[in-house]
Amino acid sequence: MPHIQSSDRQRPAGTSGPARDVALNRRILDAVLDLLEKQGYSAFSMNQVAAHAGVAKSTIYRRWVSKEDLVADALEGIILPKASEEEVRPTNLRDDLVVSLIHSSGCLQRTDHRFVRLFSGVNSAAPEVGKAITGRYIAHQYEALKNCLLLACGRGELSAAKTADLLSPDDLKLAAIVSLLIAQDDVLGKTLDEKGIAQLVDGVCLPLMTQG
Amino acid sequence: MPHIQSSDRQRPAGTSGPARDVALNRRILDAVLDLLEKQGYSAFSMNQVAAHAGVAKSTIYRRWVSKEDLVADALEGIILPKASEEEVRPTNLRDDLVVSLIHSSGCLQRTDHRFVRLFSGVNSAAPEVGKAITGRYIAHQYEALKNCLLLACGRGELSAAKTADLLSPDDLKLAAIVSLLIAQDDVLGKTLDEKGIAQLVDGVCLPLMTQG
Repeated sequence: MPHIQSSDRQRPAGTSGPARDVALNRRILDAVLDLLEKQGYSAFSMNQVAAHAGVAKSTIYRRWVSKEDLVADALEGIILPKASEEEVRPTNLRDDLVVSLIHSSGCLQRTDHRFVRLFSGVNSAAPEVGKAITGRYIAHQYEALKNCLLLACGRGELSAAKTADLLSPDDLKLAAIVSLLIAQDDVLGKTLDEKGIAQLVDGVCLPLMTQG
Repeated sequence: MPHIQSSDRQRPAGTSGPARDVALNRRILDAVLDLLEKQGYSAFSMNQVAAHAGVAKSTIYRRWVSKEDLVADALEGIILPKASEEEVRPTNLRDDLVVSLIHSSGCLQRTDHRFVRLFSGVNSAAPEVGKAITGRYIAHQYEALKNCLLLACGRGELSAAKTADLLSPDDLKLAAIVSLLIAQDDVLGKTLDEKGIAQLVDGVCLPLMTQG
C-alpha cells in the first residue's frame, strides 16, 4: 500500500505555515507538476524532484511521506486553481451554489487541460493515487456545499433543522449532488459547463435543499 | 479501438430469437464467464471460448464482432441476474422505485461477489470494455427509473407534464440518481443495501420526482 495522507489532515501542503515554508512547498509541488507533465508518473524519482526544485531530498521527506503522497498533494493543489475567499461574495443560496460549484468543478472542464491530462496519466499509472485524489475532490465538493448551506442558514434562508438534516451522514441529498459532479462524464457523456451547473443548481440542488 | 456494440442495439444477446439460439447464446456466454473466472480477461482466446462451449468459432463470430463485445455481453447478462417482469408487481411510485432499484443495483452488492469480482478484473485488464459495461449499466438504471415514472404517470400519480420534464434530456434529476448509484463506492465509501436504497428513494428520488 502506498503512503498517502488523507485529505483531512491538519497540514494542507503549501497553504499554511511560515511564508518561507509556503514558498518552499510551492516550489516542490510545482517541480512535481512539471515532471508529471514532461515525464509521466512512473518515470520520475524523488531525486529528480529534489534536483528540479533545488532542495535537499531530506527537505522533501520532512514534508511528504512518499512519492504517492507528494503527487496527490500536487494535483490537489490544482483541483481548486482559483480558490480565494474574496472571489466568493455570499448573496443568496442559489447564487452561492452556482458560484461555488462552477469554481469547485472548474478543474474538470476540458478547457482546463492541465488537471484532466495530469490526473488521467496518474490514474492509469497508479490507480490508488487516482483514488486518493478523487477522495480529496469529493471532500472539497462536500465542503463547498456545506459552506453554502451554513451561510444560507445564517441568513435565515434555511431552518437550522433542515440544515442539520442535509448535513446528517445518513442523508443522501448532498451525496447525489456530489455523485453527479464525479460521474458526469460517464452519466451525461459530457462535462457540465456554466449553464449546466446552473441547471444542476435549479433542477437538483434547490429542490433537494429547500423543499419537503 | 475494440469493437463493442452499444447497449441500444436491437439484439440483446441471449434474450431473444428462436429458443435454440437463446440456449446456444446462453452456453457461449456461460463459457465466457467461466473462463473469466478461471483465467482472467487477458488469458483466454476465442478458440478457448469455442472449445469450452462446444461450438465452432464461426458460430461465435456470427453473433459477436469481437472478444470485447462478447465479454461486455456476458457481464451485462449478470448485471440484472434476476430480471423478470413477473417479479415486479407495480403498486405505487415509491414502492416501485424501491423494488426496481434494489433489483437493478443488486449486482453491485458485495454479497454478489461474482459481478463485482469479474467486472473489476475486466476493468483493470481492458478499461474500454469496463467503460462499455458501465455505459450499459447506466442505460439499465435510466430504463428502470423511466419505467417507474411511466407507470406512475399512467396511474395518475404524476402529471404528464411533470413526467415529460423528468424524462427531458436537459433535466439532471434522473442523472443525479443514476450518478449516486454509479459513484456510491467512491462517494459514500460503501454499497447501498436495501435500507440505503429506501433512503435514496425517500430522501432523493421522491423529493425530486414529486415536488416543485
